[in-house]
Amino acid sequence: MSEDFVCPLDWRYGSKEMKELFSHENIIKRYAQVELALIQAFIKIGLTSEEDVENVKKAISTIKAIEVDELESKIGHDVMALAQLLTERSGDSGRFIHFGATSYDIVDTAYALIFRDALNIIKSKLVEVIKILASYSIKYKDTIMIGRTHGQHALPITLGFKFANYVYELARSYERVLDMEKRVIKGKMSGAVGTMAGWGRYAFEVEKNVMEILGLRPHEISTQIAPRDGHAEIISVLAILASQLDRLALEVRELMRPEILELAEGVGNRVGSSTMPHKENPVTAEKISGLAKVARALTLAELENIPLWHERDLTNSSSERIILSHQFLILDEMLNSTIELLRNLRIFEDNMKKNLELTKGVIMAESLMINLTLRGMKRSEAYRIAYDLAKKAKASNMDYYSVCKDDENIKKYFTDDELKEILNPYNYLGMYEQLIKRSLDYASKVIGEELNFN
Amino acid sequence: MSEDFVCPLDWRYGSKEMKELFSHENIIKRYAQVELALIQAFIKIGLTSEEDVENVKKAISTIKAIEVDELESKIGHDVMALAQLLTERSGDSGRFIHFGATSYDIVDTAYALIFRDALNIIKSKLVEVIKILASYSIKYKDTIMIGRTHGQHALPITLGFKFANYVYELARSYERVLDMEKRVIKGKMSGAVGTMAGWGRYAFEVEKNVMEILGLRPHEISTQIAPRDGHAEIISVLAILASQLDRLALEVRELMRPEILELAEGVGNRVGSSTMPHKENPVTAEKISGLAKVARALTLAELENIPLWHERDLTNSSSERIILSHQFLILDEMLNSTIELLRNLRIFEDNMKKNLELTKGVIMAESLMINLTLRGMKRSEAYRIAYDLAKKAKASNMDYYSVCKDDENIKKYFTDDELKEILNPYNYLGMYEQLIKRSLDYASKVIGEELNFN
Amino acid sequence: MSEDFVCPLDWRYGSKEMKELFSHENIIKRYAQVELALIQAFIKIGLTSEEDVENVKKAISTIKAIEVDELESKIGHDVMALAQLLTERSGDSGRFIHFGATSYDIVDTAYALIFRDALNIIKSKLVEVIKILASYSIKYKDTIMIGRTHGQHALPITLGFKFANYVYELARSYERVLDMEKRVIKGKMSGAVGTMAGWGRYAFEVEKNVMEILGLRPHEISTQIAPRDGHAEIISVLAILASQLDRLALEVRELMRPEILELAEGVGNRVGSSTMPHKENPVTAEKISGLAKVARALTLAELENIPLWHERDLTNSSSERIILSHQFLILDEMLNSTIELLRNLRIFEDNMKKNLELTKGVIMAESLMINLTLRGMKRSEAYRIAYDLAKKAKASNMDYYSVCKDDENIKKYFTDDELKEILNPYNYLGMYEQLIKRSLDYASKVIGEELNFN
Amino acid sequence: MSEDFVCPLDWRYGSKEMKELFSHENIIKRYAQVELALIQAFIKIGLTSEEDVENVKKAISTIKAIEVDELESKIGHDVMALAQLLTERSGDSGRFIHFGATSYDIVDTAYALIFRDALNIIKSKLVEVIKILASYSIKYKDTIMIGRTHGQHALPITLGFKFANYVYELARSYERVLDMEKRVIKGKMSGAVGTMAGWGRYAFEVEKNVMEILGLRPHEISTQIAPRDGHAEIISVLAILASQLDRLALEVRELMRPEILELAEGVGNRVGSSTMPHKENPVTAEKISGLAKVARALTLAELENIPLWHERDLTNSSSERIILSHQFLILDEMLNSTIELLRNLRIFEDNMKKNLELTKGVIMAESLMINLTLRGMKRSEAYRIAYDLAKKAKASNMDYYSVCKDDENIKKYFTDDELKEILNPYNYLGMYEQLIKRSLDYASKVIGEELNFN
Repeated sequence: MSEDFVCPLDWRYGSKEMKELFSHENIIKRYAQVELALIQAFIKIGLTSEEDVENVKKAISTIKAIEVDELESKIGHDVMALAQLLTERSGDSGRFIHFGATSYDIVDTAYALIFRDALNIIKSKLVEVIKILASYSIKYKDTIMIGRTHGQHALPITLGFKFANYVYELARSYERVLDMEKRVIKGKMSGAVGTMAGWGRYAFEVEKNVMEILGLRPHEISTQIAPRDGHAEIISVLAILASQLDRLALEVRELMRPEILELAEGVGNRVGSSTMPHKENPVTAEKISGLAKVARALTLAELENIPLWHERDLTNSSSERIILSHQFLILDEMLNSTIELLRNLRIFEDNMKKNLELTKGVIMAESLMINLTLRGMKRSEAYRIAYDLAKKAKASNMDYYSVCKDDENIKKYFTDDELKEILNPYNYLGMYEQLIKRSLDYASKVIGEELNFN
Repeated sequence: MSEDFVCPLDWRYGSKEMKELFSHENIIKRYAQVELALIQAFIKIGLTSEEDVENVKKAISTIKAIEVDELESKIGHDVMALAQLLTERSGDSGRFIHFGATSYDIVDTAYALIFRDALNIIKSKLVEVIKILASYSIKYKDTIMIGRTHGQHALPITLGFKFANYVYELARSYERVLDMEKRVIKGKMSGAVGTMAGWGRYAFEVEKNVMEILGLRPHEISTQIAPRDGHAEIISVLAILASQLDRLALEVRELMRPEILELAEGVGNRVGSSTMPHKENPVTAEKISGLAKVARALTLAELENIPLWHERDLTNSSSERIILSHQFLILDEMLNSTIELLRNLRIFEDNMKKNLELTKGVIMAESLMINLTLRGMKRSEAYRIAYDLAKKAKASNMDYYSVCKDDENIKKYFTDDELKEILNPYNYLGMYEQLIKRSLDYASKVIGEELNFN
Repeated sequence: MSEDFVCPLDWRYGSKEMKELFSHENIIKRYAQVELALIQAFIKIGLTSEEDVENVKKAISTIKAIEVDELESKIGHDVMALAQLLTERSGDSGRFIHFGATSYDIVDTAYALIFRDALNIIKSKLVEVIKILASYSIKYKDTIMIGRTHGQHALPITLGFKFANYVYELARSYERVLDMEKRVIKGKMSGAVGTMAGWGRYAFEVEKNVMEILGLRPHEISTQIAPRDGHAEIISVLAILASQLDRLALEVRELMRPEILELAEGVGNRVGSSTMPHKENPVTAEKISGLAKVARALTLAELENIPLWHERDLTNSSSERIILSHQFLILDEMLNSTIELLRNLRIFEDNMKKNLELTKGVIMAESLMINLTLRGMKRSEAYRIAYDLAKKAKASNMDYYSVCKDDENIKKYFTDDELKEILNPYNYLGMYEQLIKRSLDYASKVIGEELNFN
Repeated sequence: MSEDFVCPLDWRYGSKEMKELFSHENIIKRYAQVELALIQAFIKIGLTSEEDVENVKKAISTIKAIEVDELESKIGHDVMALAQLLTERSGDSGRFIHFGATSYDIVDTAYALIFRDALNIIKSKLVEVIKILASYSIKYKDTIMIGRTHGQHALPITLGFKFANYVYELARSYERVLDMEKRVIKGKMSGAVGTMAGWGRYAFEVEKNVMEILGLRPHEISTQIAPRDGHAEIISVLAILASQLDRLALEVRELMRPEILELAEGVGNRVGSSTMPHKENPVTAEKISGLAKVARALTLAELENIPLWHERDLTNSSSERIILSHQFLILDEMLNSTIELLRNLRIFEDNMKKNLELTKGVIMAESLMINLTLRGMKRSEAYRIAYDLAKKAKASNMDYYSVCKDDENIKKYFTDDELKEILNPYNYLGMYEQLIKRSLDYASKVIGEELNFN
């Protein structure tokens, strides 16, 4: 029976710490934590005592999710089932349990707590990814390689420069999470339609007390539930992050092709294929790309949860039971896998050099054009010349330099030494070093930690 | 620990029979079943014996999913882990285990078996839904009610006519499943890149034997895997069905509004709210609508699985572990819930009559226009007259008949008795009866079972 | 030919000002504006003169999109075609046109300008929506109506309170746009692979000059293109806003049902149906809900644009030609329609009162429970009593007060006057007034404009 | 003004024939065609004459979409505007225009006609794609190349075999379209709520006549509109096809990488980059992949159109104005581009051979394992041996054959000649030839045309 799971998040993917946050058991515990905060909030307005709080706390410690499920199966309401169990086990101290509250005061506030913890896990793993990438940016700062656009060779870059782009992109996601947190880590204690009617004149005090106990700020106003634009923001911000990790995984998968082999996922003693003994596959990177597809798709489901009816309908409930846990666990698995992928990444500098030379220098055509223009030619004319020479080089399978040096036009403009300098890719890396620095500085500022170890 | 699940499909939604199909344990069993079929297929070509088959069968019966997981965690490959365990436990009979096959020969063929069973469950529950709707179509054939477009009162229909539309729509989904099955319930036994190279000249015989044993037809050609357009078709066909069930649930949710109250979800002794003792909520219908959002979203993820690289990449694997099981279990839960919703549906014929009269007869304006036209007026002019009278009736809060009968224009065309007949909604139900019949006849033909019990 | 459009954004939806931003013609103009900024940026580093700038400016004024298209059809590259035309028409001043730049330096920087303008339009229309809603929040502050959850009557609220929720929700979207702008209104002037190699040691000065001229900040680092997480953020933030407007439109559509009729879209002399002269339909609200579906869906396409290959591939180009223009124009149309919908909104306070009383007082069951608890009863017991009385009232079709006042239990706790007060919905509106204020204060702060006109 | 478009479908993508189908002008023409069919249908039941039909036909020929728009802007209803214009211009013959019909009788029936034509275009272009692929399957039947899984070298295949997989996959899409057509090319002539009330006892005759005139079958039953599961099926079937074309384009883009260069998009004199004169980019293939993203996303929007309210709400209208035209035009552009891509495809057989040998023979490890097993070894043991030898070859950068021939184990089993045969990739192509035949036979049957030109 222990393997009787249908969801891979229950047996295969996700870290222990993230799973614990979204397990059925823990969600019930968080609900109970909010119910307890409410009992505690009542002390100051004279409805409950410290002793009541202690008794309810004890009652909570006895409750199992399965008991809540069983009672729910009878009465058809999960939070009500929990409240009823708590009341039964708290004796007289249970008198004010759930008093004035609606289920979603409990649910949405509990989820604000879960989101806070879950986003902390996400942020901390994301920082780890950024740090590894930043350290690689520095380590491979000067490792020259070809930059590729459209899958074709474009201009030289360095491996550190490539990594620094990911540092920047992922730091943007980190920043997005920070911006988002102020809108979504918010409690809700406002009763059945948001008016707080159940607590009479004490309402704001109840809200204030509960939020202080739990360390949350409240929504300014609400219906029965917290506004779902926040939930959709969480899911879409995570989907953006997932797609960025997908891009990084895709980079590795592509550069690991045997014809390219500039980067490779470390495979250790892992078997590649059940039938092809020679196979070594980037399965971790492929897992990352695969899960990103689900992360993207779930965005749609949560966007559909925004247009609920009036003071709320319940259609967000069943869908969010899947969406919320799955999106966080998928990201958690993706981040863990990315850390593993990066830590074990194999880097083939020799192949980078070899590939850089693969197209026999035509990648320096822009440099030639630039220098012709600087020497007085119209850029458009210079383009045409550099273009024709590149065509000629390719057609004759010759080196670009060889074709250029015999060209009458070129000779008029440059000495042979000049031409060599112009066509040397090492001279055409632009501001890569300063740009790496700019990226790392930005990321340092965003994550509040120094990344530039130089 | 038993509640340590994160996915609601593992503790809350889905039937036992469907869960069993998609449980980790069962999927491993199905893999083993295909491995066994392969061993059996080898008999005819002289590689294995009946005894080998028996021995492998015994070995299979000893294997637990968790053992496969443990071995996978060492060697990094699940099907390989299974094959290795089987080999170890089959003694000499294990010599040809997995011989010539690639993992996805096993995986995709096993899933074809799972799809067949899962689609049978879906079809059988869908037939159940259609049957209940068909019986209601007949039972409430003449129960008059208002037809609504844009949420506004349009023209009279009958409740049976309304249900018959759902019969037709859902029968179309049934037909879609049938059409689809011929493309997706197909095995794949073609080796690592689809050429069948491992089995030499016996390849087609191996394929034929395996398929006969399992009762499947093979794909005509394949890469390492079955083409994913089929999987995307499954997921999207189920998403269409989910959206149709959503439409039905939405119908109930809307008509259960207390201001309308023509239909209502039966709530029994279920509690409606944790804080509002009077609440009775359509939570089953809302669950259906909620899950439909996830079913729609998952379609996107599977569409992204079609453009895999070359002879395949692995990015479909992690995503399909979620998509396939979840889509079937979501639909399973939705169908079960729809059956429950329909069986316990409460029908308020009195309110239907009351609501029919709510707008004081202006809903018969079309009938007036039609009859004016038949008496010789231009339709456009008749429209204008019927429109002005409707405006007048609404402005003065009068009955349409009363406004009409005093109108000089109308008097010229109709006697009072004629006018009464024209404005009587019971006379303006059109071909509802024959259309119900047409719908049920179509559905009968599609599902191969007589639905018209009259 | 003038109606030979296939896209409704070209003949039906969207404002003139937004269309202008995304028209093919204007996009070319913006490209030219960035090319011009580059020529101007070169002055300070001694490559060009003010006169060159003037000549290029003149050349730009002569260029038509159709000419660019024609040249593109020959050479297969749109920005190249533009640069070529500009060069041809600028005489000697065209020597440095496009010098050192790659196409996407032009495209992505031009789009940053377009996004800035387009987001300003969005923000200004969103403020308009928020202002109308805020004014209604105040005007209808005390207009009592039933709050609805699950489509069922829950507890009383006020219409102003309902509107104030939308104020809060939409102000959150405004805030999201502000947070986003710092990541997405960023120029990119970094050459073919992002290293800025073409401008040699002047690179940062070129970037700085261009950005100052255009009033943009640059990306810290980039590949050939600006990172697409920013584009995905724009599209998803707009999809969230679209879904919020959908929620508001849905509110009107539902409350306009003739059985409810608390709000209604103003229809003026609009015809409701081509065949039913009496029809008045909320077609503007329905258009809003309809377009929201497309806005949600487009999010997925842009999320898929994040994982591009290496220093970029071109698959974002064709898709973004559709996604970007469509998402902004869809939102533009939705905001315009929402403004129109709200301005012409009809409000039926009498029906709100009538509906409030529809369920004969059982909506006050929570209030009864609260007061029983405050008088010493356990909340759970009080729930049960209030629940039984509600059931009794419903079963007997009696008024909740009448059922309660004869109940022995109730009599023990409350005098008849007390009971009347407890069951009076006007006494059970909680902190609605202060919550409206909180919402408006928050929104005021976010949009930087005072909304609380009291 | 002629370039004042915002949608690339209006100025850039899509064929003339498909654009014509979905242009605003043509859609109005199709509406008019259905109105005319209705007038004609009335002849047999004595309401109209042949002369009326002629007069209405003349009236139709005078009407421009822009006139309909102008009138719509006054009365707020497009079909009503058309009917009104037709009536005005038909004199007495216009008396029965739109008689008994609702707008969506016109709209949905017109779209059934458009779908029929549009699907014919799609099918015919799809057949063209399949034919080219089939001819390549035969032409390159024996062109050996490496099969790739996970982007890594797997086993040898042939180029013809690769193409034949696409033939099979695309033929499945063709079959899906055929299956779908029976559900979606259906007219609807059933009045405002589907009961046909407006035509009294002549209703079925009216429906029959209209359908015969237009060559359509009617829906068995309907609400005000045709059921939207059909529309969602169209959009998702096209999205599946789009994703398959994406897969083919991706194949070319990947194999065109300069390190691989087995296939390449023909670029003619097209310019690759505005700044890099040497660039040749697969921009057609990239356009295909880019548009596929939008095609996938639109699926979601149409799935959301299934759960409409009751007898319909209008939220499908605005969204479908975008979805339907865009999905067909996107597919049209993708198919055209695929045909162009395939026709100009460059094939580098030498590079295929070179790449096949790149990994120095380890790709034949499976063959070794198979043969060891056939000689009596347990498959699992054989796997281990072949695996170790592959590891050794890679570690020492030696040829697999060289490593094997010196291995004591191997020597025991095979002579040197045998080993050479075993490790010869030309001997390990399996049933590629027969599988190509199977694929082409299947496709021939599906499209009803012989594809196997041998």
